[in-house]
Amino acid sequence: MSHNYRLIVSCPDRVGIVSRVSSFIASQEGSIIEANQHSDLATGRFFMRYDIRANALSAHDFRIAFAPIAEEFEMNWRLSDSDRRQRVVVMVSKESHCLVDLLYRWSAGELDCDIPCVISNHDDLRAMVAWYGIPFHHVAVEPDDKASAFAEVERLITAAEADSVVLARYMQILPPDLCQRYAGRVINIHHSFLPSFAGAKPYHQAFERGVKLIGATCHYVTEELDAGPIIEQDIQRVSHCHTPQDLVRLGRDVEKAVLARGLRWHLQDRVLIHGNKTVVFS
Amino acid sequence: MSHNYRLIVSCPDRVGIVSRVSSFIASQEGSIIEANQHSDLATGRFFMRYDIRANALSAHDFRIAFAPIAEEFEMNWRLSDSDRRQRVVVMVSKESHCLVDLLYRWSAGELDCDIPCVISNHDDLRAMVAWYGIPFHHVAVEPDDKASAFAEVERLITAAEADSVVLARYMQILPPDLCQRYAGRVINIHHSFLPSFAGAKPYHQAFERGVKLIGATCHYVTEELDAGPIIEQDIQRVSHCHTPQDLVRLGRDVEKAVLARGLRWHLQDRVLIHGNKTVVFS
Amino acid sequence: MSHNYRLIVSCPDRVGIVSRVSSFIASQEGSIIEANQHSDLATGRFFMRYDIRANALSAHDFRIAFAPIAEEFEMNWRLSDSDRRQRVVVMVSKESHCLVDLLYRWSAGELDCDIPCVISNHDDLRAMVAWYGIPFHHVAVEPDDKASAFAEVERLITAAEADSVVLARYMQILPPDLCQRYAGRVINIHHSFLPSFAGAKPYHQAFERGVKLIGATCHYVTEELDAGPIIEQDIQRVSHCHTPQDLVRLGRDVEKAVLARGLRWHLQDRVLIHGNKTVVFS
Amino acid sequence: MSHNYRLIVSCPDRVGIVSRVSSFIASQEGSIIEANQHSDLATGRFFMRYDIRANALSAHDFRIAFAPIAEEFEMNWRLSDSDRRQRVVVMVSKESHCLVDLLYRWSAGELDCDIPCVISNHDDLRAMVAWYGIPFHHVAVEPDDKASAFAEVERLITAAEADSVVLARYMQILPPDLCQRYAGRVINIHHSFLPSFAGAKPYHQAFERGVKLIGATCHYVTEELDAGPIIEQDIQRVSHCHTPQDLVRLGRDVEKAVLARGLRWHLQDRVLIHGNKTVVFS
Repeated sequence: MSHNYRLIVSCPDRVGIVSRVSSFIASQEGSIIEANQHSDLATGRFFMRYDIRANALSAHDFRIAFAPIAEEFEMNWRLSDSDRRQRVVVMVSKESHCLVDLLYRWSAGELDCDIPCVISNHDDLRAMVAWYGIPFHHVAVEPDDKASAFAEVERLITAAEADSVVLARYMQILPPDLCQRYAGRVINIHHSFLPSFAGAKPYHQAFERGVKLIGATCHYVTEELDAGPIIEQDIQRVSHCHTPQDLVRLGRDVEKAVLARGLRWHLQDRVLIHGNKTVVFS
Repeated sequence: MSHNYRLIVSCPDRVGIVSRVSSFIASQEGSIIEANQHSDLATGRFFMRYDIRANALSAHDFRIAFAPIAEEFEMNWRLSDSDRRQRVVVMVSKESHCLVDLLYRWSAGELDCDIPCVISNHDDLRAMVAWYGIPFHHVAVEPDDKASAFAEVERLITAAEADSVVLARYMQILPPDLCQRYAGRVINIHHSFLPSFAGAKPYHQAFERGVKLIGATCHYVTEELDAGPIIEQDIQRVSHCHTPQDLVRLGRDVEKAVLARGLRWHLQDRVLIHGNKTVVFS
Repeated sequence: MSHNYRLIVSCPDRVGIVSRVSSFIASQEGSIIEANQHSDLATGRFFMRYDIRANALSAHDFRIAFAPIAEEFEMNWRLSDSDRRQRVVVMVSKESHCLVDLLYRWSAGELDCDIPCVISNHDDLRAMVAWYGIPFHHVAVEPDDKASAFAEVERLITAAEADSVVLARYMQILPPDLCQRYAGRVINIHHSFLPSFAGAKPYHQAFERGVKLIGATCHYVTEELDAGPIIEQDIQRVSHCHTPQDLVRLGRDVEKAVLARGLRWHLQDRVLIHGNKTVVFS
Repeated sequence: MSHNYRLIVSCPDRVGIVSRVSSFIASQEGSIIEANQHSDLATGRFFMRYDIRANALSAHDFRIAFAPIAEEFEMNWRLSDSDRRQRVVVMVSKESHCLVDLLYRWSAGELDCDIPCVISNHDDLRAMVAWYGIPFHHVAVEPDDKASAFAEVERLITAAEADSVVLARYMQILPPDLCQRYAGRVINIHHSFLPSFAGAKPYHQAFERGVKLIGATCHYVTEELDAGPIIEQDIQRVSHCHTPQDLVRLGRDVEKAVLARGLRWHLQDRVLIHGNKTVVFS
């Protein structure tokens, strides 16, 4: 029986990394299905992602055998088992378009993950989530007691054994300590072409400024609002004919598309964080 | 012999404007070749642009006959003679791509204007401009005596009887009084997707932020740097593979395209300024 | 109480049409909310679409009062009541993405229509349609008795009092007489950038040819397969990395977007058919 | 002194290729600057492109040392010296936009090649080419004696020691034997989104069909007209407002961009031909 792994590496760039890693894989009778690598010239850092098929080797044995190489090259690395689906908790408020889109793609097999639950600060989308057979948790966030709400949110995330969390238009700001504990694992969709129009009501900001394109940005959540590493962005043309409500409507399509692409790449270990930027092997 | 005019109007929106204007044109035996109109719901303002062919009527007579209607509807209006080419002064620094593109399009008949001269703060592009038979003026801008440089620039613009000025990557900031005197007539190309990355070195700012799309913005120049009414914008996809130099190279193509579209629309009286925004009948 | 109408006109182009129509509307104390017009220079035909708000006038009275003008200018015209929602029957096979997208947009208020029923040649999507409270009819199409199947399909369309029919990836070819009876009222989404790859399995054709962009086309159905007037098209970049299955997956997003835009414009009377082409006042 | 090479390989896919090649490069003290690889699942063929920096090794010695590995893996391969600029002959007719664009990019350092000469069947563009200091050859193609014209064309190409030939809107069909002798080395820009509108006057065909997007295709020339392997494509949105002349004007920008990208990738050995398709490591 064959196993599929993904080896994700970043390390200081130097001669011989590819040779050493690929020889190791060949020595274990693994074959490389897909290979991506990138040398960042500005920082001298090297990134690689190998999709590997191995017949005999277990993940455990792979990790033990690979450790000395990783140490020699000062690698920051992980091996993920492609056959094990990530567990992704989705968080929403009242706006349904991103959730509807994610659930459709998930049910159509486009997103290779399990969704143990959906958490919302409103109860509006319960029926839709129920239709997909997914548990729905309503955790209201009261302005004067956010701490207890987010304690409950974190309890649910932990109980769900979530690998990643997706903020699919969840209109609350996560507390800093939660951002830190899940660094690189919480994905947000922001409804503007960042860094333009960070913060609240970006479509209204865009309308006021009179831009001719609106956009959306999928990024990892960090403590600083709307400032984390960008995974994916896209835009939609608009004109003087469009009201703020039109921008909201047109923007929904961009948000859905950008979040779906960003999440899909994240689930396939195609997104490597590099400082406040990303390397995306799409 | 027939004449072609463009009637550009903005006024408070109310019932009967189109009827009154189109009846006037019909009464003068003019035919409407192209009509564009827009009601801005937020401000209650109405905008229209009519392309008119008239057999007998002179521009002078048109203006006299139309004035009472304009007064009745409190119109801000102008009639331009489509057969008279605008005079456009182009200003550049050392980067040639926008200039090369504009001159090619001008010679190919894509830009319906005369170019009485090119003004630059460097002498580098003189030979290229000379090849097109266009006068080239080198006006150095010394940091400690910008005033005299811009006095000379304005003298040249006035002497050229310029209707409009294009800053085709002119890397100097025009003085406020010049911006005011030529309000709505100076077009700039900024090498970012405004409002992101206003100011200096936008591609380097974009690189640092790790955006996945870069852009360019064509806008009218106002006293506030990179904050004037936006005419046109576009973007280009980039990735972690691209260095700041790659962004500069890829951005050149977007800058050229966006500036050419914006200028073409401006020359055809398709851009109406509305506060700090534009109505573009493209 | 005010009424909203849309006046759609095409006629031979000549002086005075706009004046006459807009004066008529003003005389009826109607105001023009949005106006679009187009002169086709090659054929000398004029097209217009006026969004009108009238306080007193009924549609019936409007039609009677307007008829003489229409006759004088040899107009092909119709007045639709914007406040009356079109009835749209949706037809599908097994692929659900376009249906899911349409139903979501419909429930979110993006598509201004009623959906009296969904008809399918398979039973797979019944539960999804039921969730939206819409009747679902399964009409199997047997290869050796298509005639009776399509007789039943037409009976259902008639019973639903459908204004329009959308083929949202309905993988059967409608019989010619049905196409004729519903000319200009049946919208199809074809999963290629027509006229490339008409007919079956367009993504596989695209893969074989090695194109670098795939597309989708929303068009009116005519007797000739995939050859009717095009309403809207869009594309998605692909590469050598993509298998035919990837093209199918990526193409789904383009299909959904293109069909939704085309249908929305159709429902707003923004699409005027001109021979085998369309004028789209988007 | 360091040398830069590009190793381009295609071979049957099997375990150990990357390991063997990268170990060979490491053993020669070469470092891999950029690596691209692709496994074509449908045909079981493997493609790779390595950008290599080597301190001591000459191209000659590299080829000798690598030959046994190439033989073992049944490789179709070549090693190109990145420091040696390709020689590219450009062929044009009367339309200048692609030529102007290529010459600008070449002079700006975007295209890493020498241009030994430009060949045209008309004399119109001589002065422009002369301005760049590039020899210009006028070879008229008479309908009744094409053979002698193309004999002269081939003589000039040979004399120029051309590595590649670019048909930058050269409106003549090359004879089959010339196509064969320069297989994979002649790049054409076709002014449609192939396979739509192959042959003559594609913009007029597009206008007649009423498409909503026009395109351009950069491809390798083969004996069959407009049917060779596609390197790059792009599109531009159009509408019912556009005349065939507008399509021609708008299409010029797409043609320029697509040809420039395709040629740039070709010059960097990023385009590998695979049957009638391409693998493009862009």
